[in-house]
Amino acid sequence: MGRLTAIVLGSAAGGGYPQWNCRCAVCRLAWEGDKRVRPRTQTGVAVSADGTSWTLLNAAPELRAQIAATPALMPLQVALHHVAPIDVAPYKSEARSAPEELRGSPIAAAVLTGAEIDQTAGLLNLRERGAFGLFATAETHNSLAANPMFGVLDRELVPRRTVTPGVPFGLPGGLTAELFIVAGKVPLYLESDEPEMQAETGVNVGILLSAGGAKLAFIPGAAAPTPELMARCAGADVVLFDATLFTDDEMILSGTGIKTGRRMGHMPIDGAGGSLEVFANLATADLRARRVYIHINNTNPILVEGSPQRRRVEQAGWEVAYDGMEIVL
Amino acid sequence: MGRLTAIVLGSAAGGGYPQWNCRCAVCRLAWEGDKRVRPRTQTGVAVSADGTSWTLLNAAPELRAQIAATPALMPLQVALHHVAPIDVAPYKSEARSAPEELRGSPIAAAVLTGAEIDQTAGLLNLRERGAFGLFATAETHNSLAANPMFGVLDRELVPRRTVTPGVPFGLPGGLTAELFIVAGKVPLYLESDEPEMQAETGVNVGILLSAGGAKLAFIPGAAAPTPELMARCAGADVVLFDATLFTDDEMILSGTGIKTGRRMGHMPIDGAGGSLEVFANLATADLRARRVYIHINNTNPILVEGSPQRRRVEQAGWEVAYDGMEIVL
Repeated sequence: MGRLTAIVLGSAAGGGYPQWNCRCAVCRLAWEGDKRVRPRTQTGVAVSADGTSWTLLNAAPELRAQIAATPALMPLQVALHHVAPIDVAPYKSEARSAPEELRGSPIAAAVLTGAEIDQTAGLLNLRERGAFGLFATAETHNSLAANPMFGVLDRELVPRRTVTPGVPFGLPGGLTAELFIVAGKVPLYLESDEPEMQAETGVNVGILLSAGGAKLAFIPGAAAPTPELMARCAGADVVLFDATLFTDDEMILSGTGIKTGRRMGHMPIDGAGGSLEVFANLATADLRARRVYIHINNTNPILVEGSPQRRRVEQAGWEVAYDGMEIVL
Repeated sequence: MGRLTAIVLGSAAGGGYPQWNCRCAVCRLAWEGDKRVRPRTQTGVAVSADGTSWTLLNAAPELRAQIAATPALMPLQVALHHVAPIDVAPYKSEARSAPEELRGSPIAAAVLTGAEIDQTAGLLNLRERGAFGLFATAETHNSLAANPMFGVLDRELVPRRTVTPGVPFGLPGGLTAELFIVAGKVPLYLESDEPEMQAETGVNVGILLSAGGAKLAFIPGAAAPTPELMARCAGADVVLFDATLFTDDEMILSGTGIKTGRRMGHMPIDGAGGSLEVFANLATADLRARRVYIHINNTNPILVEGSPQRRRVEQAGWEVAYDGMEIVL
């Protein structure tokens, strides 16, 4: 192929859509099979510059099903003499992978934007001695390392590469990536009573990918439109951006929660300082990007085709990601 | 309903079928869509005595999709005035659940047979303030506690109940359960170089469920046919039993692995001391149970309808579990 390609594996926020225990107005449509909505798994994207080696952006709990729904990621797509895309430590009796003809995967790397469940639990599905590089900030790697369960990923086959935000690094198949700090918070399971928002650390990052002059930015969680964030978005050809909530108080008003979106690390779509507004305020010349909303919470009315909120974002030039959506740059 | 009912949510061993990175002969059929096989998610069962409150036996990584495929487990099935089946600690600002009319689930409890990924990772899907009891041995709870990620399950809403093998306990909806020790091993991610097999500890257990005189035994992993195990099976009306591998050296011979089944904590179906043999040796009077093979590895040829191995187990009176299978006692 030779063109930067992204496949949306999942497009929902944590919990997926519909959420297992939710009967809010939006979830109810999905449970009842209403045609205006489509179910969505939790957010993850696969990207490739050569159509052969694929890199996962985050690893949602549903990763196994996402792979099974995506022909490009199935093991039969790998040529028998496919060269392992990353260096694997020398042979050791227990650490070797199965023979090339029996095991293999087009998945050559994974890059994480944080250590939340919906960003990482899918890694537990990749535990059968497949070799791939796992790229994340030191903060995210530390959170993984604190959970012995991730030990199922043998470090000799799945090297944990620590990435410094702002420093570009190479990925298999000719992709270049760069992490950049985005306002956010530590994972829910590591929260103290009052987590610091907008901390300038690597707990929450965005990913900028480039190949052949094309650029894609993936920002599934952003608590605030910092200048650095907006500069990255302005320079990209496509932006996949945080659409967790439509309004900041959506979960409070719907009775499904007691936190604002910003308290959860997500700026809203609507309202003052929401993504509709801040992207509209970018000078037109600075915003050449296709803008795609992703990481959509089960309460968000943009999930419903034809809803006023959905029409509003579409009229503002945004697309709404869905599982299986393919973006070719 | 009033009858002990079990729904097989998933029937495959760790990795599921097909496995993300596998192109062994059996997986290949699934990737190619061959009609003789059907895809299977990792093993889990939902049981109920009243058709209203359901208990999960293990929590596979695919639990979210398993719930979405099982009408009995969807939140719309819960009556608005459904009474919470377990005691929840007194109101605390952060720990409360959402209003009854907006959130709810027929899932009232979960019981674990061990702390392997395929037995526990699905719990991470139940993280949105739903209340249910989590029952397991001290060993399994310790393994969960060592992973801060499971902190997403608020202990006030999801009390972790420690169960002593051999001591019956009550479950919502009129079920009685008992755990019993089964030969096995610690989870892979906690293994030392030579894990002790058949340890008489609670790291690996079976579950005996009873309601209204009917009994169901769930044993997804058994390294050896100990007398206690066989006695439990003999007394049950239905046995869901470990079918990981057909032959002990299956993974070695197929080139997909370097361990025997027993080394992985699973006695084989075929051969000396395999489940076909040891169940055949039970006196007929002792074996009134329907026998159902479950936890089937992606390499196991019983997955293929019409295969010699599949015919062999069927001729011996065994059924082969599939996702969605319903057993009513």
